[in-house]
Amino acid sequence: MKSYFTLNPWSILEESFDPAKHEISESVFSIGNGYMGQRANFEEQYSGPSLQGSYMAGVYYPDKTRVGWWKNGYPEYFAKVLNSTNWIGIHVFIDGTPLDLATCQVKDFVRELNMKEGTLSRRFTAVMEDGKQVAVEALRFVSIVRHEIGAIRYAVTPLNFSGELRLAPYLDGDIKNKDSNYEEKFWLEVDKAANPEASYLTVKTKKLDFHLTSVMDFDVFKQEQRTLLTPSFHQQEKFVSAEVGVVASQGETVTLYKYVANVTSRDIEPGQLVEVGTQKLAIAKKAGFDALLQEHVEAWAEKWKMSDMIIEGDVSAQQAIRFNIFQLHQTYSGDDDRLNIGPKGFTGEKYGGSTYWDTEAYCLPFYLSTAEADIARNLLIYRYKHLEKAKENARKLGFSKGALYPMVTMNGEECHNEWEITFEEIHRNGAIAHAIYNYVNYTGDTAYLSEYGLEVLVEISRFWEERVNYSPAKNKYVMLGVTGPNEYENNVNNNWYTNRIAVWTLEYTLEALSALKQQEPARYAELVGGLKLKNDETDKWQHIIKEMYYPYDEGRDVFLQQDGFLDKELTPVKELAREHLPINQNWSWDRILRSCFIKQADVLQGLYFLGDRYDLETKRRNFDFYEPLTVHESSLSPCVHAILACELGYQEKAYEMYLRTARLDLDNYNNDTEDGCHITSMAGTWMAIAHGFGGLRVQHDELVLRPFVPSHWTSFSFKVMFRGARLQVQVSEDNILVTNETATPAAIRIYDTAYTVGSLSQIEVPRPAAALS
Amino acid sequence: MKSYFTLNPWSILEESFDPAKHEISESVFSIGNGYMGQRANFEEQYSGPSLQGSYMAGVYYPDKTRVGWWKNGYPEYFAKVLNSTNWIGIHVFIDGTPLDLATCQVKDFVRELNMKEGTLSRRFTAVMEDGKQVAVEALRFVSIVRHEIGAIRYAVTPLNFSGELRLAPYLDGDIKNKDSNYEEKFWLEVDKAANPEASYLTVKTKKLDFHLTSVMDFDVFKQEQRTLLTPSFHQQEKFVSAEVGVVASQGETVTLYKYVANVTSRDIEPGQLVEVGTQKLAIAKKAGFDALLQEHVEAWAEKWKMSDMIIEGDVSAQQAIRFNIFQLHQTYSGDDDRLNIGPKGFTGEKYGGSTYWDTEAYCLPFYLSTAEADIARNLLIYRYKHLEKAKENARKLGFSKGALYPMVTMNGEECHNEWEITFEEIHRNGAIAHAIYNYVNYTGDTAYLSEYGLEVLVEISRFWEERVNYSPAKNKYVMLGVTGPNEYENNVNNNWYTNRIAVWTLEYTLEALSALKQQEPARYAELVGGLKLKNDETDKWQHIIKEMYYPYDEGRDVFLQQDGFLDKELTPVKELAREHLPINQNWSWDRILRSCFIKQADVLQGLYFLGDRYDLETKRRNFDFYEPLTVHESSLSPCVHAILACELGYQEKAYEMYLRTARLDLDNYNNDTEDGCHITSMAGTWMAIAHGFGGLRVQHDELVLRPFVPSHWTSFSFKVMFRGARLQVQVSEDNILVTNETATPAAIRIYDTAYTVGSLSQIEVPRPAAALS
Repeated sequence: MKSYFTLNPWSILEESFDPAKHEISESVFSIGNGYMGQRANFEEQYSGPSLQGSYMAGVYYPDKTRVGWWKNGYPEYFAKVLNSTNWIGIHVFIDGTPLDLATCQVKDFVRELNMKEGTLSRRFTAVMEDGKQVAVEALRFVSIVRHEIGAIRYAVTPLNFSGELRLAPYLDGDIKNKDSNYEEKFWLEVDKAANPEASYLTVKTKKLDFHLTSVMDFDVFKQEQRTLLTPSFHQQEKFVSAEVGVVASQGETVTLYKYVANVTSRDIEPGQLVEVGTQKLAIAKKAGFDALLQEHVEAWAEKWKMSDMIIEGDVSAQQAIRFNIFQLHQTYSGDDDRLNIGPKGFTGEKYGGSTYWDTEAYCLPFYLSTAEADIARNLLIYRYKHLEKAKENARKLGFSKGALYPMVTMNGEECHNEWEITFEEIHRNGAIAHAIYNYVNYTGDTAYLSEYGLEVLVEISRFWEERVNYSPAKNKYVMLGVTGPNEYENNVNNNWYTNRIAVWTLEYTLEALSALKQQEPARYAELVGGLKLKNDETDKWQHIIKEMYYPYDEGRDVFLQQDGFLDKELTPVKELAREHLPINQNWSWDRILRSCFIKQADVLQGLYFLGDRYDLETKRRNFDFYEPLTVHESSLSPCVHAILACELGYQEKAYEMYLRTARLDLDNYNNDTEDGCHITSMAGTWMAIAHGFGGLRVQHDELVLRPFVPSHWTSFSFKVMFRGARLQVQVSEDNILVTNETATPAAIRIYDTAYTVGSLSQIEVPRPAAALS
Repeated sequence: MKSYFTLNPWSILEESFDPAKHEISESVFSIGNGYMGQRANFEEQYSGPSLQGSYMAGVYYPDKTRVGWWKNGYPEYFAKVLNSTNWIGIHVFIDGTPLDLATCQVKDFVRELNMKEGTLSRRFTAVMEDGKQVAVEALRFVSIVRHEIGAIRYAVTPLNFSGELRLAPYLDGDIKNKDSNYEEKFWLEVDKAANPEASYLTVKTKKLDFHLTSVMDFDVFKQEQRTLLTPSFHQQEKFVSAEVGVVASQGETVTLYKYVANVTSRDIEPGQLVEVGTQKLAIAKKAGFDALLQEHVEAWAEKWKMSDMIIEGDVSAQQAIRFNIFQLHQTYSGDDDRLNIGPKGFTGEKYGGSTYWDTEAYCLPFYLSTAEADIARNLLIYRYKHLEKAKENARKLGFSKGALYPMVTMNGEECHNEWEITFEEIHRNGAIAHAIYNYVNYTGDTAYLSEYGLEVLVEISRFWEERVNYSPAKNKYVMLGVTGPNEYENNVNNNWYTNRIAVWTLEYTLEALSALKQQEPARYAELVGGLKLKNDETDKWQHIIKEMYYPYDEGRDVFLQQDGFLDKELTPVKELAREHLPINQNWSWDRILRSCFIKQADVLQGLYFLGDRYDLETKRRNFDFYEPLTVHESSLSPCVHAILACELGYQEKAYEMYLRTARLDLDNYNNDTEDGCHITSMAGTWMAIAHGFGGLRVQHDELVLRPFVPSHWTSFSFKVMFRGARLQVQVSEDNILVTNETATPAAIRIYDTAYTVGSLSQIEVPRPAAALS
């Protein structure tokens, strides 16, 4: 699968058609706009292997939890990303024969994801069984300006004959989810029409009553000429279509423009869906395909202005990082605080439930740096709105107070059902607290704490308070039965990271409370009253902060991942024979658990999150101890190692780590891209560049940079939004050029020297030769 | 549910019909003969709630493993006890109306399980909707003499009318398993006949091709007179029946005798099944119902002669222990070394796979003491035959050598699929080794070691060798990632019991090897050659024996259940509010895992198994520490505590523990008897009396007794087979009377004094007043 796609700085290009790779391409060429998304399924019929996928953000299905042996506390359902009405479909008949790339000969096939403009296009020549040849050119996009609108231009030209082309745009709600437990379909028909006045389909989910109305309209042109036709309309269960026939002479192009509006009961009363959808569609269609496309391309240009990364000297890296940034923008636009970022975004069904700790730990920094602060803020508000559910979740597990955020969720309720994860991987609560810190530290928006953040922090602190217990044997607080970020250890005692992030939460909560008391005594009193926060509780937090136990190895002077870690055989990964890797495919779970091998950053995750609390030598000792034991079998792991390696001056190691995720989906490293792209880990790649190679941090209200250029690149640049200023940071071997693209001056620090970059101006700083040796 | 059944020393009696309790009674009144078994379903149609269950030992279905999240190493299938052809059915029509106890009025209902004779009977008067009354008396048994044969006598008497009775005995193979994953049926029809010459049905399982042929015949009597009739025959898919009509005057009894032979491809070539089944049935029918019954009753008398326990002064206890002994005999007869003892025997489907470590840990002592040695020996041979599968199982998990016996199995392959059990509850291997010791110690049959046992011991020892690892931190061998007998702890390090039983296995294996080398050098050489056993290996075993780590608390001088146990909050169970118990119903799994509460004997299991290696004070300290923390939420737990409590002189505690399982199913303590009876825990109750109150041990080739009478009883007695002698031990407050019922003299030791009980003679020993105070 290596380098299957043509390298290009702004596009993903597939220059031949290989049915065996089609499902991978369907994932990679997905398009989305944060509101809806669509795999790169063909518009016309395709009888070969394909994973059809049309997704509406926030529309999900609570499918019955499937489990071998039930444990008390498991959630009743697993939320599934819903495959919904196929709105892209256009049946095409060439003189009566259906066009199907699985049954005809395909020549000159090119599929292109134009990342600069946000479009998916495709062109090919089909040779039908009877020898008739047609050229097809298709282009589609889902508008990032009018998010309900999808538009398709589909052009067919008979090359060696004259004859009838029939085109039948349709809406098909009779679809299924691949991950349905029992092949059950999740949608019911509510309403439909297929007549000259209206073509629409309303379906609703069997549970939760999500309604989706898709309204379609279309125009047909022969050459440049709009053709007036009398379509025939068809209906069947959960299906509507219109069909037109056009006689075309050899060389004459027939073009269908299909416009669809998808509206859901998440935003509009079910009774209004058809009316609102019809209106939106009519306005869009009136604007026309070209205008819709133009505004869409302009909006993408704005996004790129905020977030582009340029890598000189390595087109493969350039393509990859733009692909990652592009997919992140397609998945989450930040204008709806009920939405979040699923691990597969709109590219597949896998991992069902939408939201993992990935959002806080990996994605937040990307949105903080590449968009206005309210985008990142909405990610926080999402969790704030789920606070009551998180409290219920803690109650279900037997806690008398506090909040435990779910491991996997759609609406705040827990969906995951492995006890060692669901009940034990509680460090996620710490990541949610840390995201608040991260946001406030980055944006300076301390009002967020007062208004929302502190409620969350207090409830999480209460959870930690009850989750620890005092060990008479150790004379310390301990935390028993947890799973750390490294999921290759389960049910351990005193995972260093979890203990540390718990105590950090208590510290930060107390700090934030104290600051609020000083700055806004009235609001403080109101908050404390509302939360019924007692001195007993904060005293206990102080005591836990003081008396928490942390596993530690004196000999090596390193933090221990958990109690008993040193009882393991400590073999470096590099001594494992190649056929053992990845161990999650080659070893029994038993063997993995007993081994020393670390799935993803665990102690090192803590040293990254709390980087300002540990000195470089502590980081180095721990990195040198844990890195050789880490197999990085989560796509979220390498970026943290890359960033720490950069900090430690391990440039080659950093680049090696960066490479492990940079082209994960483009090169299908994990052999699973057909299920969808690894959206959340794409943010990790961005972090590896910005926080790693760029050395980006925010400390003491300053933007800090310690950049270097990986030896495989000539130079690189990235955009960073910081407190109203947008900077472009260009890093070459010799110097760093920082351009302030806004009128807001920015205080930054480069290699420990402070600078101010004035309004719309530039500074150039020479790169010290030994800065990071 | 308390005392629903009438107390009686030899019978279980239900003296009214309560449809809500019918499924419980169906379990309790089950009959079986080790070859097949049958829940107490009604012969006639019953439209109320019922769990139909006809089971053929060793006939199972490998249903696809169902799991939420797959882990490498999980088995592909879960073996299910198969509900098979319903052979007891007789449709009954009273003047055309079907007799159905769910739709008519039922009077004078009595259901009786006659444990002395091994029969299930039932009588009642049914008042039909039209006022017609019939008296019904039914009796059935599955022969323990001719194990393929089941026989039913079904008598109907019109009480207030004269009219036509129609009786239709049938065979119905169109049945399903309650625990089928997707309501799928597991049987296919192969062959059938229903005509004057033959009535039979052959079905086979969809997987594994088990064939079952059921052949039926019948006679009808009016009063004492055999009636010659011309039955009509019916067939449909997987179903055959015959139907006869008899006109009976008021007060005249019509009796149907139904005979069935069930034969399977486990014993007979599929092509021969009909012929063999027909022959067996013909011979049985020729002998006639009364003769079949008589030989069956006589055979039961023999079983009781070997195994009866008599309790004076407590009819409830008397009934309970006989019920337990009865069910154990019904479940396993020991004449087929391919069979074993499922947790529910032939009383339900639950726990699917047949064999757990229950057999070795709990059931073996019962069969050792109450049957000829070859019965217990066959339980060992069962595991011997599975040795290759156990080696494969270890390979699957990544071990380069050795054998890991499965947690749950039907044919030697693992069926269970919770990683914390399947991969980690490896102490089961120790129980299988210990059973060999137990058998040899009890019977003196050292030849078993040479012939079979040592191969198993060596392969288990090899497993332990590879499963431990050397901890540089502890300078000891450790065993990481295990689950001990206490399943309320998962994935712990250094479970004391597991470490101890592992080292014990190594010790015993080395001892047995050394003894064989001395006694049979040629066989030793052959065995070592065959096993390719190297000195390196036995040296390593010695080293592990010497350098194994055992968690230990110096302060309390007790063994620690596992590393870190003292980090828990140690709250005694008695301080838990009542509504929390049982914790497995009221607490989340998370809370259970982090608590100190112990599901079943763990450290104490080791002190029981290896009782001769620990002094009384060590046992006392550990018992006093662990007993208060034990919730006994496994039915296998209390018996071990009872036995240790007896040894420690804690008589009230011992009796309390004994009570927790004695009437588990009769009084439906766990609210789950409708799923089937807890067969394996019944052996625990027997142990609590024989090993507990009786103080029975075998030490230095002597039978040792240290009995006392629980204060709630007047006296008790039990039978014990020991090396060719059968003794009855009668214990009263004042003395112990030991009767040798055989011609073989027996050396026994009572309260540390040695005696010999001569051929067919008796000794009486006064009970020392302070013997166990």
